[in-house]
Amino acid sequence: MNIDIITLYPLFWKNIINNYSIFKKAYIKKKVFIKIYNLRKYGIGNNNKIDDYQYGGGYGMILKIEPIYRCIKELKKKKKYDDIFFLTPNKKIINQKISKITSKKKNILFLCGYFKGIDQRIRDNLITKEYSIGKYILSNGDISTLVFIDTIIRLIPGVIGNIKSAKTDSLYNNNIIKNEYPLYTRPYKYKNMKVPKILLSGNHKIINKWRENKKF
Amino acid sequence: MNIDIITLYPLFWKNIINNYSIFKKAYIKKKVFIKIYNLRKYGIGNNNKIDDYQYGGGYGMILKIEPIYRCIKELKKKKKYDDIFFLTPNKKIINQKISKITSKKKNILFLCGYFKGIDQRIRDNLITKEYSIGKYILSNGDISTLVFIDTIIRLIPGVIGNIKSAKTDSLYNNNIIKNEYPLYTRPYKYKNMKVPKILLSGNHKIINKWRENKKF
Repeated sequence: MNIDIITLYPLFWKNIINNYSIFKKAYIKKKVFIKIYNLRKYGIGNNNKIDDYQYGGGYGMILKIEPIYRCIKELKKKKKYDDIFFLTPNKKIINQKISKITSKKKNILFLCGYFKGIDQRIRDNLITKEYSIGKYILSNGDISTLVFIDTIIRLIPGVIGNIKSAKTDSLYNNNIIKNEYPLYTRPYKYKNMKVPKILLSGNHKIINKWRENKKF
Repeated sequence: MNIDIITLYPLFWKNIINNYSIFKKAYIKKKVFIKIYNLRKYGIGNNNKIDDYQYGGGYGMILKIEPIYRCIKELKKKKKYDDIFFLTPNKKIINQKISKITSKKKNILFLCGYFKGIDQRIRDNLITKEYSIGKYILSNGDISTLVFIDTIIRLIPGVIGNIKSAKTDSLYNNNIIKNEYPLYTRPYKYKNMKVPKILLSGNHKIINKWRENKKF
């Protein structure tokens, strides 16, 4: 999978791609190739201006259409994107089903949002899908984009070593039924805190029943 | 505010604190001080072991109680924490109200989760609050912790320059009523894509009515 990201914080992404957990793993295993595009480079004039005041008045700056249009146009010449995503509040919240569908795409592009928002003409004409990660406000779109990409990457076959572990995760397949139970590992006793004895019984029928009752 | 984070990926956090957007701003303005603690350093034996197999059987590794207990015990000697947070699926999903309440705390600690999960004795005895960021699975707890911290930091007075902009954000004060309308900035016309004329009218009564009707 090819993931392209348009951002104002290329360093944020480069450190994640090169060093961080599943992002590094997915690259080493040649499953995911992430390219970062610095929106500032497409800015206007000597100062590479990317934002401006709102038409009609109101607080906060808006990302201008031109730099984003030029950047996406240039990228589209090199790749045919299955989807161009924009993460924003007040849109449909992502879930495992959406992540799974997206994990099967070949080329996807993410535009990270900043400031008060982006010029609506970008959303109407260039973005193909808009999602939210939750009903809360983030400082900008890098973090929501990171969340969505993380949920996608781990579902690409071969990225996570133990796919059986991933498949027993709660919420897998958009299953919202509570599917997590208390987990314990050695030592059996630590500072007077003991593991429930039943888990040491070796009787899987009884253990499964206990886990079923203990689900969060 | 002091934020301490227990993680297996100190580099992930250090790059964010030193370079990234609101995290860097909050530090420069002396509003937030984030300290990173590498859980691996509290691991057991020559290999600094931190995980082990599940009692009772099942796929995936579990974070052991000892390294986390030792780390948190050491940190508690230096600070009195208002809360010790653990982000995990299947718990109450954060919202603006929770972020706002948390933004008023003085000392908070986050434990990032990994692998299949953490020993339940940690959750029962050391964690004071558990939240989720949404109904989807992330590769680990750094990213969910990052989301929660980002929503908190931006609500601390003095961190965001334009607090009026933050206050007109959608969802502010846990207001789930749709409060976003299309935003436009210059140029008025770009590649035949025009800004709605009404926004150039200068008539704020008409503009506000238009925005009300256009809310997402």
